[in-house]
Amino acid sequence: MIAEIITIGDELLRGEIIDSNKARIAERLLLLDLDCRYQVSVLDDPADMQDAFRRAAGRSDFVLISGGLGPTRDDMTTEVVAQTFGREMKLHEESLVVIEAFFRSVGRDMSDVNRKQAYFPVDADVLKNSIGTAPGFSIREGRAVFFAMPGVPRELDLMMDDEVLPRITSALFPEEGQQALSEGRSERRVVRAVMLRTFGMGESTLETELLDLAREGEVDLGYRTSFPDNLLRPVARAKTVEEADARIARVSAAIRDRLGAIVYGEGDDTMEIVVGRLLTEKRLSIATAESCTGGLIAERLTDVPGSSAYFLGGVVAYSNAVKASMLGVSEAVLEEHGAVSEPVVRAMAEGVRKRFGSDFGIATSGISGPSGGTEDKPVGLVWLALAMPASEGADGQTSTHAESFVFKVSRSGHRSLTSQVALDWIRRSLLGIELVGPSLMRRAGGGSNPSGSLA
Amino acid sequence: MIAEIITIGDELLRGEIIDSNKARIAERLLLLDLDCRYQVSVLDDPADMQDAFRRAAGRSDFVLISGGLGPTRDDMTTEVVAQTFGREMKLHEESLVVIEAFFRSVGRDMSDVNRKQAYFPVDADVLKNSIGTAPGFSIREGRAVFFAMPGVPRELDLMMDDEVLPRITSALFPEEGQQALSEGRSERRVVRAVMLRTFGMGESTLETELLDLAREGEVDLGYRTSFPDNLLRPVARAKTVEEADARIARVSAAIRDRLGAIVYGEGDDTMEIVVGRLLTEKRLSIATAESCTGGLIAERLTDVPGSSAYFLGGVVAYSNAVKASMLGVSEAVLEEHGAVSEPVVRAMAEGVRKRFGSDFGIATSGISGPSGGTEDKPVGLVWLALAMPASEGADGQTSTHAESFVFKVSRSGHRSLTSQVALDWIRRSLLGIELVGPSLMRRAGGGSNPSGSLA
Repeated sequence: MIAEIITIGDELLRGEIIDSNKARIAERLLLLDLDCRYQVSVLDDPADMQDAFRRAAGRSDFVLISGGLGPTRDDMTTEVVAQTFGREMKLHEESLVVIEAFFRSVGRDMSDVNRKQAYFPVDADVLKNSIGTAPGFSIREGRAVFFAMPGVPRELDLMMDDEVLPRITSALFPEEGQQALSEGRSERRVVRAVMLRTFGMGESTLETELLDLAREGEVDLGYRTSFPDNLLRPVARAKTVEEADARIARVSAAIRDRLGAIVYGEGDDTMEIVVGRLLTEKRLSIATAESCTGGLIAERLTDVPGSSAYFLGGVVAYSNAVKASMLGVSEAVLEEHGAVSEPVVRAMAEGVRKRFGSDFGIATSGISGPSGGTEDKPVGLVWLALAMPASEGADGQTSTHAESFVFKVSRSGHRSLTSQVALDWIRRSLLGIELVGPSLMRRAGGGSNPSGSLA
Repeated sequence: MIAEIITIGDELLRGEIIDSNKARIAERLLLLDLDCRYQVSVLDDPADMQDAFRRAAGRSDFVLISGGLGPTRDDMTTEVVAQTFGREMKLHEESLVVIEAFFRSVGRDMSDVNRKQAYFPVDADVLKNSIGTAPGFSIREGRAVFFAMPGVPRELDLMMDDEVLPRITSALFPEEGQQALSEGRSERRVVRAVMLRTFGMGESTLETELLDLAREGEVDLGYRTSFPDNLLRPVARAKTVEEADARIARVSAAIRDRLGAIVYGEGDDTMEIVVGRLLTEKRLSIATAESCTGGLIAERLTDVPGSSAYFLGGVVAYSNAVKASMLGVSEAVLEEHGAVSEPVVRAMAEGVRKRFGSDFGIATSGISGPSGGTEDKPVGLVWLALAMPASEGADGQTSTHAESFVFKVSRSGHRSLTSQVALDWIRRSLLGIELVGPSLMRRAGGGSNPSGSLA
């Protein structure tokens, strides 16, 4: 079975926007084990569109089209599909009612051009659009089933999930559908996948570590870098959903066993979501004292809904005067050691924890570049410190872990990597495991952990 | 003249990565007025690749290929191009030397597979890769000139700019090249474009405002939304570079005249870069007091290299206790009016300005959602305040402008929009023009500006 994706729009071929729709469609097809073999983009030009539709009808089983369903003159997909295959256009009353209702609900007048969105080729199966005015449609032509969908990514996603994938599934399993599939009586295989998010180990090391798991053949193991994380994607193909899920579960457990805390989350979990979940569970709070990250750690923590339950606030201490006045860092220490130093970053973490009355205080001070480095303190150097309650029995005492790294990356990469290490330290501390930096980084100085409570 | 883009790689058709390369190539071709008519993506499959190359040779003048030049088994572009057109492969000594030198420079051993990257089809023109190991190449076949380039975006960009575009330009102007073009003796047209960044006016209003300029036909006027900004792109086609540039300049001036401060920058200028430039010029400083934006304003300001010259720091005051202790907001005022209120946001802006000793203090307090709203204070409500020196003659006095908005957008959209209004207020204040909110927003309450110094 062969799938083909056709994306339509002048803006795609002029490079005015990046076409993310083909990836959105393709990753969903992969989960049905559908081989997406052809991908074509064409201009809003009837001749080019006809050519693409005709070729697709001859070589593919499922043709997924995105774009050209809007109300403007440039939007010609429906009409050109009808022309290509010699079909008349026909009003779909039900869609007209829905489009009229949509305009009423947002308090706008419906213009005549929107009427055109309720016309479809004869015998088309109309696909609902629950959040926009452009319904999609499906027709069968020769060996191929065509699905025409809107180009707006959110509308496309919903239509793929709610309307298109169920129809493709029924087409793939025509006799008994899902039941046959889940009982393993179908000839088709199902595909299941999961995304494991890792931080702290380079991609080639990951591959080496997991080589034997990949070789066992239970799953295909995909790798992708999403700086500063590396993503692992076990994909299992099996005759039943249950068997595929069981394989994914076995391999995921083996990977977690092998990599330990390097795996920090699954699916859409970001580091800040994972940290927020742990802080909420343990009813602990955090405050931030940022120099080189300039507010990025606070921004990431507060990006999570409900973060006010554990995030009290922070200080962005960019100037030395602010480090002294707002965080209580001694001016003598600043003078003697400089802002990017262990004593200063410790004082920042301990200062913010004390002044905000939080359980944790995290601090950063570094040289993100591109300029500002010296021989002793090169561009890329950063000191991090995490202040926290000392181990039990030492009431009211603070334990502070500090370490330095040199990250040889761009300014924005430096800020991003530093904020990720900071959040990862909070996570590791909440899990009671060792605070380490990522293995891909070069260490600038020794770590120090005088209280020893973190080992 | 017709251009075609072919991107190669299983990962593209599986939706594992979003293919930004075709946009990178297409936007560069547009500047040569080259019509990019076809765009195709194919698997790492020799039969599919041959099919695509053969079809391109028959219908296009310039064929731009990206991907498949690496050292691994999956990388087959060079070999398949040679096979498709019946050419032998030949070692290019010069490239071998360069690849060997590259490995020496990064202190790694060169493996045998990298040798393959120095082989090209007979009569190929080798394209330099100044930052990676994969050179590209160009061959002529029938009416078409093929350019094969690496898939790594940074390598692709450089090779397009340094190696491919000059060759296409020479091909387009074979007799006298650029000279003929700049003197208008060529039959070809040149294309020049500029990007104007606007904030505060909706796209349809912009289109209406500029309708007559677009109609005059000196330029094509493109519109694109990059939330929360709208981007305008005048594109001029003319017989000479000078004439095209003059058209762009005339139309840009007319647009700025019409829209005033709505146009805040050009090209890659972000709002934070523009604000930083103005603060540096006027030797003024800023400090931030953020509640709902959670550090985003500070993060954006410090994203700009050199921001330590004008950004002193900030407080992320997420909890009420922190608003009181770190910014000096009175607990009675917090109690009476609530955190999202005019008195509180004023006190935050004035408090951070005083405590940090900065010229400007900007503050935000709002309900970004998805929950936390009440009937009086719905999700989306936000108060902003900008504290600054009062007008001349009122020594040491503070003038504070405060206003509220309701932004009916997602949590991250709310934070992004609020931070943009905040930065825009600083910009407007530095330019001595009225502080306004974007016209696309609904106002929740009246603005107030007791000192009147900002009008």
